[in-house]
Amino acid sequence: MTEDAIAERRGRRSGGGAARRAERTATRAEFSRFITRNIPDLEILNAEALEIIEANAETVLEEIGVNFVDNPAALRLWQEAGADIDGERVRIPKGLARRLCATAPATFTQHARNPERNVEIGGRNLVLAPVYGPPFVRDQAGGRRYATIEDFRNFVKLGQMSKWLHHSGGTVCEPTDVAVNKRHLDMLHAHMTLSDKPYMGSVTLPERAEDSVEMSKILFGADFVDRNTVMTSLVNINSPLTFDSVMMGALEVYARAGQASIVSPFIVGGAMAPVTVAGTLTQVLAEVMAGVAYSQLVRAGAPVIAGAFVTSIDMNSGAPTFGTPEAAQITLGAGQLMRRLGLPYRSAGAFCGSKLPDAQAAYETANTLNTGLMAGVNFMLHACGWLEGGLVSSYEKYVMDADQLGVLHRLAAGVDLSENGQGMDAIREVGPGGHYLGCAHTQANYKDAFWRTGLLDYKPFETWDEEGARDTATLAGLKVRRMLDEYQAPDLDPGIAEALADYVAKKKAAVPDAFV
Amino acid sequence: MTEDAIAERRGRRSGGGAARRAERTATRAEFSRFITRNIPDLEILNAEALEIIEANAETVLEEIGVNFVDNPAALRLWQEAGADIDGERVRIPKGLARRLCATAPATFTQHARNPERNVEIGGRNLVLAPVYGPPFVRDQAGGRRYATIEDFRNFVKLGQMSKWLHHSGGTVCEPTDVAVNKRHLDMLHAHMTLSDKPYMGSVTLPERAEDSVEMSKILFGADFVDRNTVMTSLVNINSPLTFDSVMMGALEVYARAGQASIVSPFIVGGAMAPVTVAGTLTQVLAEVMAGVAYSQLVRAGAPVIAGAFVTSIDMNSGAPTFGTPEAAQITLGAGQLMRRLGLPYRSAGAFCGSKLPDAQAAYETANTLNTGLMAGVNFMLHACGWLEGGLVSSYEKYVMDADQLGVLHRLAAGVDLSENGQGMDAIREVGPGGHYLGCAHTQANYKDAFWRTGLLDYKPFETWDEEGARDTATLAGLKVRRMLDEYQAPDLDPGIAEALADYVAKKKAAVPDAFV
Repeated sequence: MTEDAIAERRGRRSGGGAARRAERTATRAEFSRFITRNIPDLEILNAEALEIIEANAETVLEEIGVNFVDNPAALRLWQEAGADIDGERVRIPKGLARRLCATAPATFTQHARNPERNVEIGGRNLVLAPVYGPPFVRDQAGGRRYATIEDFRNFVKLGQMSKWLHHSGGTVCEPTDVAVNKRHLDMLHAHMTLSDKPYMGSVTLPERAEDSVEMSKILFGADFVDRNTVMTSLVNINSPLTFDSVMMGALEVYARAGQASIVSPFIVGGAMAPVTVAGTLTQVLAEVMAGVAYSQLVRAGAPVIAGAFVTSIDMNSGAPTFGTPEAAQITLGAGQLMRRLGLPYRSAGAFCGSKLPDAQAAYETANTLNTGLMAGVNFMLHACGWLEGGLVSSYEKYVMDADQLGVLHRLAAGVDLSENGQGMDAIREVGPGGHYLGCAHTQANYKDAFWRTGLLDYKPFETWDEEGARDTATLAGLKVRRMLDEYQAPDLDPGIAEALADYVAKKKAAVPDAFV
Repeated sequence: MTEDAIAERRGRRSGGGAARRAERTATRAEFSRFITRNIPDLEILNAEALEIIEANAETVLEEIGVNFVDNPAALRLWQEAGADIDGERVRIPKGLARRLCATAPATFTQHARNPERNVEIGGRNLVLAPVYGPPFVRDQAGGRRYATIEDFRNFVKLGQMSKWLHHSGGTVCEPTDVAVNKRHLDMLHAHMTLSDKPYMGSVTLPERAEDSVEMSKILFGADFVDRNTVMTSLVNINSPLTFDSVMMGALEVYARAGQASIVSPFIVGGAMAPVTVAGTLTQVLAEVMAGVAYSQLVRAGAPVIAGAFVTSIDMNSGAPTFGTPEAAQITLGAGQLMRRLGLPYRSAGAFCGSKLPDAQAAYETANTLNTGLMAGVNFMLHACGWLEGGLVSSYEKYVMDADQLGVLHRLAAGVDLSENGQGMDAIREVGPGGHYLGCAHTQANYKDAFWRTGLLDYKPFETWDEEGARDTATLAGLKVRRMLDEYQAPDLDPGIAEALADYVAKKKAAVPDAFV
């Protein structure tokens, strides 16, 4: 975003009053800027490995090709670009997809209605967004149950209150009590009114993507949306090598509107891709190149994120597995490949297969969060709240994961080598056998010296035992209630609020409910 | 170890019989070789940062110096080497400590009584050893209680049965029901008879280190111990900058006997070192250089591991904290510094502050295990079983962590870029929209394609729910019982077994019990 654009938006929202409101908001919910890494990536593929995989991906695109299903317009665009069309199969000559990808921006700004919450996606940055898609929710009190719009709103509120989360996300859970053909309206309305962080648009039909653009125009102003990116939406590829017209239809709407899409293979290794890491990386790269190239055929310069949602499979049960070493290798390797493509990279998340927010969930999640940081991920969807292989949005795990996201912030910041950071005065003052707690350097630095959890228990055993010997999930449940109690909606211009409500009401009234 | 040495030992244990016994043993407990990394380290300090910290560490040693307490012989050795002695303070001219460190081997073999369990410590390797030191144990059935020798033996048995664990460790818990002045005998006896993996010696008094050497000579043969390293023992530095005579006394015994010591600052950042990462790294490096240099003054060429046990502190409660970003930065940075010193590196572990094997424990542990792998750690003590800041050895967490160690093995192995690994035949066979589960490549590879947990639950929700909706700790408790039931002691020459039992009995009978 240019400085002008920020000034323009501040102005449009009536200047001083908006600034004062922003100030008050800031005291309500703590907020952290997106991560900019000051540490290197972990690169597990050497130059030879990268070249083999890149050459193989080009071979896949040229010899095997990809299917664009029910999408004659897409086939025409591909043909004009020089691809070989055979039915719905698109075979892409070597080099073409990579050349087309080059017009996609390496970094872009996604604007939030509160400009302080804008995020820069790409480069050395990491933007964290919550869980996406589960039909169920779980909490300690209510157990596992179908998600409702009330749950949805609760999760948006938790997101607004979560210091280390930069993005309000999209389908934080499926509001199954709202008609399928109308729930996107309620979901967008919740993100727009209950949060001032950036959000995602609907992808379940092209016309729902159009609703997302229209509602964004009400929120931001039509001119602003025409000239800026205010949504990042999730476009999954039907791996292997298949692009369906629903997802591509949403991508087309967003690309034409200058809005961002995540083009993301969705792969359970061994089912939708080869069982080997290098084979999966080859397919991921081929799919991403084809999808991103297509976005650039629709509109050169459209902002896009190269995704990789990859898990492995339990060969006994066929269940997807999370936090595994193979998934880590793919996430790390794909990061290298996407950086060589010059594209922002989406991967990782608070992934786990566990049914409960227990130790399994935390091992699997921590493995994946750490991998995401080391892999150079730029946009991490599912960064908190994911449970049971993505079937469940967990209230407790949401705040547990969101607390761990603070660890990533501090780790990414790197090591302070300033004179104060070197601490030589402290070592001189204390000397052999001394104690640092009281020394001047410690007194001057202790407040910000260490990351602080907002959840985990560091009390002595006896105190903890007297207080009920509570485990992490129990403490998290208490925190969820506290956050929802303390939540306050960010200010919104009453005219905009009314216009949004009107849009939703009219759209809902125009057609009967459909539940499929 | 030379091939000759291996042959000699096989011979000494009566050849064919030993080989047959080794074969039978192998079928009892699955075993994995130590990790050799095929992925790079994560290096968070750039060249300038490394040079600043190294220069500061030299300044600390020259200007501030270190204390060698109650140890006139050490002061004499330092004086002869060119250090400046002032009371117990040793000021080491710049460059001297680093020069002395150069005679320590970059890699050494620690022998196990089963040569297949030998470990190579240093280089690209990672050797995993269990928790060390807790006075308490915890399990789901019995809760938290003082550890006994029965617990100790149980943990040694679990270690022998743990596929991904390479080392039997040392004080896997404190057997508080055995006299303080005799428990080292029972602990060593347990490691020597119940496990055939390598083990650690006693460090709590120099004469207990001597007992460790004597018992090792019974187990391995005196000649063999004179010429090979069969113990790696933990020598903590009293940070800041203090070397006490008890720990140094043990180090002296081991160095003279050609046995390995881990020379390890024990630091809660903000208490025993500056609150800043760079300040702590400076002190860690200074302490390690002084300690390792001293080991080389005692005997040039003595095997030694440069350690860094570092946690941060909760500035509210003063409690040590684990799995934090600052601890990760120190672990990563210290790895770089120790590699530049040319020494094997000990750090990380299954660290956590939680009182229960719950999500907090798993987040903190996974953060630290992943960091240890990325930091180039060569010897990871506490790799499983650590709970409650090291006060508790947890039965359940032992097997939970030990399962996660398998993740490190696979991740470290890197990506297979062979033709089979590339999987192009599979992508060709399946094509767009197909399914990989049945394809030839998947059928040929599925058995070894993915790391497999021996603990975590991947069942569908309904099955899991019907089976009792068990969390990870509950499943781990069941696994503990199964492992202890299935445990079989590795064969041991009856003559050696008798001689060991005699040594312990005579030593115990020689002095009255002491409980302080």
